[in-house]
This record gives sequence, C-alpha cells and structure tokens, in this order.
Amino acid sequence: MGKSIAFSANIPSAFSLLARSTTSPNKFSQAFPVSHRNYHLHGLHAIPHWNSKFKRAHCTKSLLSEITNQGKFPKMAAQSTGPITPSELIEVVKTAAQTGAEVVMDAVNKPRNISYKGLTDLVTETDKMSEAAILEVVKKNFADHLILGEEGGIIGNTSSDYLWCIDPLDGTTNFAHGYPSFAVSVGVLYRGNPAAAAVVEFVGGPMCWNTRTFSAIAGGGAFCNDQRIHVSETKTVEQSLLVTGFGYEHDIAWATNIELFKEFTDVSRGVRRLGAAAVDMCHVALGIAEAYWEYRLKPWDMAAGVLMVEEAGGTVTRMDGGKFCVFDRSVLVSNGSVHAKLLEKIGLATEKLKSEGIDFTLWYKPEDYETDL
Amino acid sequence: MGKSIAFSANIPSAFSLLARSTTSPNKFSQAFPVSHRNYHLHGLHAIPHWNSKFKRAHCTKSLLSEITNQGKFPKMAAQSTGPITPSELIEVVKTAAQTGAEVVMDAVNKPRNISYKGLTDLVTETDKMSEAAILEVVKKNFADHLILGEEGGIIGNTSSDYLWCIDPLDGTTNFAHGYPSFAVSVGVLYRGNPAAAAVVEFVGGPMCWNTRTFSAIAGGGAFCNDQRIHVSETKTVEQSLLVTGFGYEHDIAWATNIELFKEFTDVSRGVRRLGAAAVDMCHVALGIAEAYWEYRLKPWDMAAGVLMVEEAGGTVTRMDGGKFCVFDRSVLVSNGSVHAKLLEKIGLATEKLKSEGIDFTLWYKPEDYETDL
Repeated sequence: MGKSIAFSANIPSAFSLLARSTTSPNKFSQAFPVSHRNYHLHGLHAIPHWNSKFKRAHCTKSLLSEITNQGKFPKMAAQSTGPITPSELIEVVKTAAQTGAEVVMDAVNKPRNISYKGLTDLVTETDKMSEAAILEVVKKNFADHLILGEEGGIIGNTSSDYLWCIDPLDGTTNFAHGYPSFAVSVGVLYRGNPAAAAVVEFVGGPMCWNTRTFSAIAGGGAFCNDQRIHVSETKTVEQSLLVTGFGYEHDIAWATNIELFKEFTDVSRGVRRLGAAAVDMCHVALGIAEAYWEYRLKPWDMAAGVLMVEEAGGTVTRMDGGKFCVFDRSVLVSNGSVHAKLLEKIGLATEKLKSEGIDFTLWYKPEDYETDL
Repeated sequence: MGKSIAFSANIPSAFSLLARSTTSPNKFSQAFPVSHRNYHLHGLHAIPHWNSKFKRAHCTKSLLSEITNQGKFPKMAAQSTGPITPSELIEVVKTAAQTGAEVVMDAVNKPRNISYKGLTDLVTETDKMSEAAILEVVKKNFADHLILGEEGGIIGNTSSDYLWCIDPLDGTTNFAHGYPSFAVSVGVLYRGNPAAAAVVEFVGGPMCWNTRTFSAIAGGGAFCNDQRIHVSETKTVEQSLLVTGFGYEHDIAWATNIELFKEFTDVSRGVRRLGAAAVDMCHVALGIAEAYWEYRLKPWDMAAGVLMVEEAGGTVTRMDGGKFCVFDRSVLVSNGSVHAKLLEKIGLATEKLKSEGIDFTLWYKPEDYETDL
C-alpha cells in the first residue's frame, strides 16, 4: 500500500530529550502511562515501578496485540471499574470513535439543505448526535470516568484517573462543505497523560467517501486500519511537507502563524492547510507529512493526535519547545528529525508572543482531576 | 451521496458578462467550441453558424449523453482525422486520463525508496511513464493532433485545430509524500477554447487510495464518476471555503498571494492549500469549495479544470478579472456568485503587480496554432 508502511520507525532519542519531547527514549517504557521517573529497565523487560497505591505489572512486548492482559491500567481513584487492560481500553476507544463516525457518515450522505441556516443546523445536530453516541459507549463501559466533550463540556467523576477528550466532529467547516478531511477524535488520558486514542478520518469526498481508523495505545504503537504506522524518515525541512492551521480568533498569534506559514512555504516543499487538527496529526503519524503546528487548540483537538504521533515514533512539544500536555495552548508535532530546525523559527516566534503578553498558561484542566504531569 | 449532487446549477448570467467570464450566458451555445459570435438561437435549438469552411450541425440538448452523433467538431486543418463527435472526443479524453492514472496508481502502491534521490526518481519516472501512456492513447486515436505535455513539450501537427494539454501528474509534491490529492489532467482545446476535459483525482491516501474521474465537454456539462455536478450556491465570501496555490517561483506575485491568503483567511470560512491545481478546480466544480485562484499556472495545469468549472455552472477569469484563455498566467475560478466580491481584492492586487512590471502577457501559445481567441 502507501509510502508510510514501507518506512521503519524513526525514534528520535537524544534529540527528543533536547527538545523536551514527551516521546520516551525507549518505547518499552511507554507500555504504561506512568511518569518516566517511576520505572526501571531490567534487560528487555520494563517493569513499571508504581507509586505505592498502584499495582505492579509487567510488559515485555511493545506490540499491543501481545500485551493484552498483562499490563493493567490500575483504577484506584474511582472504584466502580476494575483495572483496565490496554487491549480492553483501546477496544472501547475505537468502538466509541467508530460509533460517532457512523452518525457522521449518515449526515455526510444526507442531501445538504442549501440554506446557510439549514447547513448550520446539520453541522450542530451532527456534532451533538455524534457526541451523544460516543458518550453512550463510554458510559456503558466505564460509568465513572471523567469526560470532556467539545459539545457537552466536563461530565463524570473528577476523582477518576481517566479523562476522555472527545471531538465528535473535528473539522466542521470541511464537513459542512463536503471537503475532505474531517474526523471523529477520541483520546483518553490516564492521570493527565495520553493513554489510548482513536481517530476515524473521513477521506475522499462526494462520490467516494471512505474512512480510515487510526489508533494508538501508550507504549503499544500507532496503527491505521490495524496496520502499524511510522512517521517519515525525512531529515531536512527543505524536503518536508508541512501542515498548519488557523483558529477562529484572529489575534496576534494568528498573524504570527500567517508569517510562519509564509516563511515555511518559502523554504519547505510546501505548507498544507487542511482544516482538521486531529487529521493533520494522524497524517504526521502516517508519514505523509513531516510536521504540523497550531496555536489555540483545545484538549479534545489534541489528546488523540499527539499520542498517535508519539506512538508512530514522532516528537511532540509546545510551540515554544516546552514539554507538552494536552491542556496546553499550542502544539508542534513532527517526525522528530526536523523538530529542532522547525523550532528555530517557531520557538522564536512563540517566545516573542509571550513577551508581548499572549497567554500560554494551561488553557484548562478539570478542577480536582489529579495528574502525574 | 455528497452535498454537490443536491445542488442545482447556478449559472451566473449578467455577472459573467460583467466579469468577462468565459462562461456563456446560454449553455446551449457551448455545445460546439466555436466563437459565440457565430451562432443563432432558434427556440430551444442552438444552430452553430459555422464559418464557411465548417459544417453546419444541430444540437437540441445540453446533456452529453443525448448529443452523441449530432454535433461534430469539424476537423479541417489537419486532414487525417475526420470530424469528431463530442462523445467520441470525451471518450478518448477519459480513456487517456484513466490510462495515465493506471500508471500513477501502480507507483502509488510501490514501496517508497526512502532516499531523497530514490523518491525524486520515482516522481520523475511516474511523470514520464504516465505521459507516455497518455500520448499513446491520443496518437492512436488522433495521429495528427497537436499535443502540449508537461514533460514532453509540444509535439504533433501545428496546423491542427486541436491542442491537447496534458499534465500526467498534477500535484507531484503530494504524490511524492503520499498526501492526497493529486491527479492526471487531460484537456483538449479546439482552436484555443477548451472543448473536452478529464481529471482523475487520487483521493484517500495510504490504506485507502481511490480515484474519482471528473469529465466535461463544452456545452455538455460536467460530471464526476458520470454523475452531473454543479458549483455551489453559496452567495457570500463569508460563507465560502476558498482554495489557493503557491508556485515554485517566490517572487513578488508569490508574496502578493500570501497576502491574499491572509486577507481571505480573515474574512471567509477558510482558505485551503491542497497543492494540485486541476484538483482544486474540480473541487470548485463539485461544489465543495467556492473558489480557487493561483498565479503562474501553465496550460496543462488549467485546460481541463477551467472547462470543468464552466460546465458545472461556474465562472472563470484571469486574476485581474480579464477574459481568460489557457495560455494566460493567472486564473480565478468560482461558483459565479462570489466572483465579483473576490475580484475586489484579487483584481486590485493583480493590477498592482502589473503596475510594478510583472509580466501578465500570454505565457505561451504554440507558434502557428490557429485559434478563435
């Protein structure tokens, strides 16, 4: 099939530390979404050294299919759900995203009401119905998990270790116009760190709509339609295809990114502007684009996509180069190899925005939600 | 299926004249690619009044399927090929594009050589092999037609009335990266005016490559996978999804278009940057984007796409608002309704470029090729 499959993994080791990436230097260490401070390597075996309140567990393989019931996400804060295995978790995440995608596909195939109001209604309704369908799947499986939905806001038990970040329709403008791509994005955090993710991308367009499903589990790799995927091995910005986005708020950060768009269009093989954050990040994970950045994203835009990139061997930071978390206000994801070079311009521009008083503190973190960040 | 099918045709009549569009005020008049000065309407029957050296012919329907053998493209300048019916012509055009697309699909499915040189070789080879496959189809059917290929330059009989404009791989950067979309584009001019066109678009991407075929014949409408398509009915720039492109030459026209990208990103629902001119124009014809513009395109980039937009009910001009021909150096295509509003900014910016000495004369017209332009 396509290019990405032929690529081998590109794990940026020394560099990822320099760039303060969330990518672990050893993939085995990501079999459990715990802080990197808390594990020790014993030969090929990564044995997470849980805090006293967590169980111990073993993981000897990095492939999801082979760690099925060995590694458990301990479930301590909220008691109704027992420990969850990575394979159980990713199955529910994929089912949730695909259930939302069915709602969206129904809407894609509906004749469009050509009035603007009619179109707006279709978008709003689809957004809400997709989120409701996703919530039903989550609640049925994990009644007490905390959920942050683009539509419904925060619901559930704030004492849960799990936070689901749901974008029921990522890329609404594309959806409204029938322009590919858009997506349903579901990412689950475990104590603040991405643990599992699924993104169902709508590709093709009128006459040939289709979907592909991206999935990833912390330490278990990234997949597209259940085939392992890797970021590209492109080494230079000059040979890179880049992607960015521009949000609704047209402030000084927006203008700065137009300038970055110009600068990188000048020196790279091109900067694409597709219009769906989760999709753009999946494209970096798939190896068809080398990097993507954007200011002003929300947790539901980023939670799934960043794990996909990390698990495909890429690098994730804030746009100032700082350690990223999904509550941040900017993200830069790349194949790793071009990250430092991109940060030379992007980091500088972002520092300038900071000095001009633009707020880059955490956008939002649910009150009382405990994390290992 | 998708949104575009539900839309009815939107033929900009009064405006198209104001904007000096190439869209005819009456679609019947385009059943034959002759100058609009040379026909008279008799009720529902448009009877082209050929110059003395042309045959007379009738056309009572605008649907391609129903005009099969009535209208003939007279073939006077080069004698080996007799008169060509629109249906004969479009079948060869579609076959040519689809034959090129088979070559491209083979390459899409090849494992990528990850070295830059290897990738460059793949792109170059695919480009050349696709063009060779297309040329074989054209020459087999019309031995004496004039052909302008992106790879091979001009070949054939310059005394022919027909000029084939072939882009064997539109969107090479996307192809190289496995990033959708890219296309094979084949457009045929009759005495300088677009007469028939086919564009095979590669959609989806790794794990789900697919194609859709756009086709159009002058006066016979535009089609996607043989279903009639129409431009969108969106009335305002604020509700529009726009698309533009940036060429390889980073001169003052390039910088001007970055500025236009910024201005329209600010006031529209978004400006997409996808990277394949023929595809972008087909998307306007399909009704999933409202407009597309770019400086510095070549005849093989534009010949097919502009006919697709016209036949889908849209408007085509130069970026200064002037009457467009495929030898021009800029193009603005739209759904018609937003054309004048777009020209307020785009036309002004282009006039400024002219005043600064940027060359907007015809880029190229094969010597001795006679036209009705």
